[in-house]
Amino acid sequence: MDFRSDNTHGASPEIAAALAAANTGTETSYGDDTVTKRLEARFAEIFEHDVAVFPVITGTAANALALAVMTPPFGAVYCHAEAHILVDECGAPEFYAGGARLVPVDGADGKIAAADLAAALDAAGAGDVHRVQPAALSLAQLTECGTAYRVDEVAALAEVARGHGLRVHMDGARFANALVGLGCTPADVTWRAGVDILSFGATKNGAWAAEAVVVFAPALAAEMAYRRKRAGHLVSKMRFVSAQLEAYLTDELWLRNAAHANAMAQRLAQGLGAVPGAGLVHPVDGNQLFVRLPGATIEALIADGFMFYRWPETVAGSTVIRLVTAFDTGEADIAAFVDAATRHGEAAA
Amino acid sequence: MDFRSDNTHGASPEIAAALAAANTGTETSYGDDTVTKRLEARFAEIFEHDVAVFPVITGTAANALALAVMTPPFGAVYCHAEAHILVDECGAPEFYAGGARLVPVDGADGKIAAADLAAALDAAGAGDVHRVQPAALSLAQLTECGTAYRVDEVAALAEVARGHGLRVHMDGARFANALVGLGCTPADVTWRAGVDILSFGATKNGAWAAEAVVVFAPALAAEMAYRRKRAGHLVSKMRFVSAQLEAYLTDELWLRNAAHANAMAQRLAQGLGAVPGAGLVHPVDGNQLFVRLPGATIEALIADGFMFYRWPETVAGSTVIRLVTAFDTGEADIAAFVDAATRHGEAAA
Amino acid sequence: MDFRSDNTHGASPEIAAALAAANTGTETSYGDDTVTKRLEARFAEIFEHDVAVFPVITGTAANALALAVMTPPFGAVYCHAEAHILVDECGAPEFYAGGARLVPVDGADGKIAAADLAAALDAAGAGDVHRVQPAALSLAQLTECGTAYRVDEVAALAEVARGHGLRVHMDGARFANALVGLGCTPADVTWRAGVDILSFGATKNGAWAAEAVVVFAPALAAEMAYRRKRAGHLVSKMRFVSAQLEAYLTDELWLRNAAHANAMAQRLAQGLGAVPGAGLVHPVDGNQLFVRLPGATIEALIADGFMFYRWPETVAGSTVIRLVTAFDTGEADIAAFVDAATRHGEAAA
Amino acid sequence: MDFRSDNTHGASPEIAAALAAANTGTETSYGDDTVTKRLEARFAEIFEHDVAVFPVITGTAANALALAVMTPPFGAVYCHAEAHILVDECGAPEFYAGGARLVPVDGADGKIAAADLAAALDAAGAGDVHRVQPAALSLAQLTECGTAYRVDEVAALAEVARGHGLRVHMDGARFANALVGLGCTPADVTWRAGVDILSFGATKNGAWAAEAVVVFAPALAAEMAYRRKRAGHLVSKMRFVSAQLEAYLTDELWLRNAAHANAMAQRLAQGLGAVPGAGLVHPVDGNQLFVRLPGATIEALIADGFMFYRWPETVAGSTVIRLVTAFDTGEADIAAFVDAATRHGEAAA
Repeated sequence: MDFRSDNTHGASPEIAAALAAANTGTETSYGDDTVTKRLEARFAEIFEHDVAVFPVITGTAANALALAVMTPPFGAVYCHAEAHILVDECGAPEFYAGGARLVPVDGADGKIAAADLAAALDAAGAGDVHRVQPAALSLAQLTECGTAYRVDEVAALAEVARGHGLRVHMDGARFANALVGLGCTPADVTWRAGVDILSFGATKNGAWAAEAVVVFAPALAAEMAYRRKRAGHLVSKMRFVSAQLEAYLTDELWLRNAAHANAMAQRLAQGLGAVPGAGLVHPVDGNQLFVRLPGATIEALIADGFMFYRWPETVAGSTVIRLVTAFDTGEADIAAFVDAATRHGEAAA
Repeated sequence: MDFRSDNTHGASPEIAAALAAANTGTETSYGDDTVTKRLEARFAEIFEHDVAVFPVITGTAANALALAVMTPPFGAVYCHAEAHILVDECGAPEFYAGGARLVPVDGADGKIAAADLAAALDAAGAGDVHRVQPAALSLAQLTECGTAYRVDEVAALAEVARGHGLRVHMDGARFANALVGLGCTPADVTWRAGVDILSFGATKNGAWAAEAVVVFAPALAAEMAYRRKRAGHLVSKMRFVSAQLEAYLTDELWLRNAAHANAMAQRLAQGLGAVPGAGLVHPVDGNQLFVRLPGATIEALIADGFMFYRWPETVAGSTVIRLVTAFDTGEADIAAFVDAATRHGEAAA
Repeated sequence: MDFRSDNTHGASPEIAAALAAANTGTETSYGDDTVTKRLEARFAEIFEHDVAVFPVITGTAANALALAVMTPPFGAVYCHAEAHILVDECGAPEFYAGGARLVPVDGADGKIAAADLAAALDAAGAGDVHRVQPAALSLAQLTECGTAYRVDEVAALAEVARGHGLRVHMDGARFANALVGLGCTPADVTWRAGVDILSFGATKNGAWAAEAVVVFAPALAAEMAYRRKRAGHLVSKMRFVSAQLEAYLTDELWLRNAAHANAMAQRLAQGLGAVPGAGLVHPVDGNQLFVRLPGATIEALIADGFMFYRWPETVAGSTVIRLVTAFDTGEADIAAFVDAATRHGEAAA
Repeated sequence: MDFRSDNTHGASPEIAAALAAANTGTETSYGDDTVTKRLEARFAEIFEHDVAVFPVITGTAANALALAVMTPPFGAVYCHAEAHILVDECGAPEFYAGGARLVPVDGADGKIAAADLAAALDAAGAGDVHRVQPAALSLAQLTECGTAYRVDEVAALAEVARGHGLRVHMDGARFANALVGLGCTPADVTWRAGVDILSFGATKNGAWAAEAVVVFAPALAAEMAYRRKRAGHLVSKMRFVSAQLEAYLTDELWLRNAAHANAMAQRLAQGLGAVPGAGLVHPVDGNQLFVRLPGATIEALIADGFMFYRWPETVAGSTVIRLVTAFDTGEADIAAFVDAATRHGEAAA
């Protein structure tokens, strides 16, 4: 029973089937195939907006490409202090953007507060030749704490950003989970709230390896194709990436998968509520839980064979673990984990 | 009937089956899965040498990563004037290597001659602070002209390169086709001949999207994992890339696929030998043919629905087309093309 | 009366004379001139260590070049949160180092504490492919708060750095001022304490435009000449940069200039001690003072024509100003400033 | 007697005097000084056009900065195969432009022919995502062969460039020599002929270290200040660079210096016309001569103590040497060289 990450899981049967189905005949390579050509219209329909769509195979590539067209090399990208782009991508945004800088802004539950962003930007030295120049804001949906920015929060942050001349990027590695958690439309939490480019993730929610850079601001799309090719992310047999995305968007598979994972997370949260010594560290808005547990309970769960990651923070003297549910996490797995945690917790209490 | 490229074709059934089979249970992400762990030993066995293996999903990424660990930003990579890394990767090597330069060396049939390389390096200004510094040699197997460097040619070039302090890279996007054409072992034409890193291609020869950076020189492997991650090429569900490579190397599928494609190319070459006005522009060492044909014949073949690319060169007044065979090119396709070309050629003569 | 910065001042007469004297006859360009050739031996003598010396014309270039040979593109440079390289160089270190990252470590009075560095490095994820890799520590002498690291402080920090595999850089834009303040030898506070490369500043202390990258670790010198040329910092008529440095090092001009500036700073500090509402914000170890003053006093001083910068911090409700003395700051200027501040302070009290 | 290069010579007395005169009082640093502020108006007057002017201290920096604002990282800069930016700057343009590529176009006497540029651009694959994208043309005045592009030649090349969407840069390291040789106005051969940015050189023609990036196209100026700072080329005591430029432009010193150097070159050319075995390899449009001479004559001249560089080409079996005159080359030096060459030439004949 594996709660380590949603990317330890495989692919949805529907996506596997689509991949197999795409393996017939020959197709023009490098994205001029029939599957890829259908994608842009499908995304436009879902997002209620004209979009340029660039499929890639990792979220890191999607994020780094998006940021590279938003910032000059002497620019700064503002993000949360725990953001994936800052902490977990080995400097990919700096690489793609020619040495631009990521500037951390701290905030509770993985979210930046609009006032904190405003304060950081006011002190940034815009127009001062000695300072890197504020160029973009990057928000994650879900955040690294498993929380989702509400529509009004995104809008307030984007307004601050635009007021200072910044572009807005959304890292949607778990966009479907956030959307289901928020209960809003894709448009509401992206371009309508001021987002210029979305890294639209599918891999963690049931694809093999498929993400899409979705560009709402036409001016930012012009360079993207060249930058993607130059980064080695223009897949020659592109139909096999696009087929994953098409299946993901068909019959609302993306929303169904996310809804299941989120429901499992809620069930887990509820079950752990009764475990002695356990407590949620952050609100659960999607499919990630951050839970503090007594050390003995954690050890016992590991001995039982449950898989999860310890987090590098301590809350109120307790170790924090991260639990991630996925599109195919079984109800039995949830029940087994809760039972075991309860049993070990009571033994320790 | 599609002779445009081997990347317009889909995937081998064996690889499709392996991909489906890998879709069970959860696996540690980012390359610490069971499939990926088996890969390195498999490559070591095939190449008769300890290797570090880094799976990626495009040849451009493989090439650019390989070159980035061989050259400083102020370095120069020597390659053929028509090399894929120079002409068809939108500057990916320069991007990955921090602005290093590609220096073209011309030569017949897509190959660099050792004497020409030596002359270029002697004039390069090594040690002169005003000049970019020679750092690496990159050879393609197959070349962009469909030819293969013989083992002794690789060895002679590598000797010149090493004598000038350069590292040696081989772009093996069509490595299997070259190997089958040469009839040598993988070791003979790589590390035994002086190659430090091989971009080992599988995509064009029956995979969906799978290449491997195979490093023979341990000192060059140290930075690779960081550079791959930083470039967005560390696939989270890596098992799905590695499973393709594993199937590709199982039961000699890679050699069988290449042998078939090469055989189809030879059959095509023989058939076209009798076509009025036709002629081979380069030797056919693998699965690519460059053929000059009268313009009327080309137009008629296109009207028949045959698909291929015109090449931007003219030989003896005739247009040149490129024909590429693949692992699944049918004998009937070859026969149909030869018949049509013969018919149109005779009509025009 | 100008206390804005030491770089608003001109050049020492001795340096002006040397520059004029160097303007005779022709000289080999690009650093192979007779003046430049003498420099390395002179620096070796002063630092009691073999060195490679690379004259440049700005401190930003010196710092960025030094860091570029210490860190790979996926590396991280640790520095104080207010460091010049982080705040005031428009991302030059990131540019030169191919997108490497600067990681701030906070600390009182502009200094990093060894324990804080150790904690940051322990949490940095060395060896984790998702994280940028700790590569270098950069310390400033003087710091941005006008303080100097003591020899034992440098040694303790360098020991932590080396223990984690980092190289050590010292930004010595005001190295002479620090040295005079510390009362130690150049060797004690650099290579003997673990410094690999020193950015040796002369511009702020009496030169027109002359800095030197002084490399104590031979392995780090190999790439420097190429990187300097590639950055456009190999001055063709190099003798005119080197002549400044030579004069600067002759008859201890560098130490005499710094001693004067530091003495003026001490006199200023003492004088301000009696001013109502005034207070030093940081210890005065060199030629910079950070002083809190009532707003009315500041306004009155500005109205009098005194020139200085307000600092973007507030201490105990008072505005902070920075006062910088230089090699040619007159005693009368100090007296005038103290008198005026006293007069305005008493009027306001 | 030194004919190696104009940068082995020192500085004009007028410039030395201006530098000394600028060394009074304090001045705002980083270019906000009174001298620098006057410069832009002076350049505008000379060029009869609004300009943005960015003083720097090397021609390599000027060129690399100019090209960096003209080309995206995936762009290509077209230049002559022997261009300084390609051959002698250790990859500075690639560094500054984030890995953009220099594409050589060959041509007689160091000049690109408009038809050759057109052919290269037509074949460049503009709009093809696999190819680097043509972005800029860079022309040198003087060229590396000592020739000058005529006004109509610049205009024809710029028209081809603009027709393909390229920006136009002029490397004017020896702009004054070219201008005097051409006998046209500064405006005629720059913006009126289609040039967007000029690297305006002063160092080789009598300054210590002073060049200016002169931007005619306002859109290209916006990023320049940040890129200059980020490259470490914003000199803190900028008045000392600007004072050189101001003196250079005062009382037509720049034109007088160039006129003298050019006249010396013509006298040298005439004198060598009578030397047995000697011959000019290229037209002499400025202050550089490329002369073929019998090996024995060259050896004898070296033995006499004359200083010059051999060129890495051979014409009609003779070695080629380069002779460069400067603002302070004496008539006696010319006479001595011609006499010696004649004497040695006759002895050998």
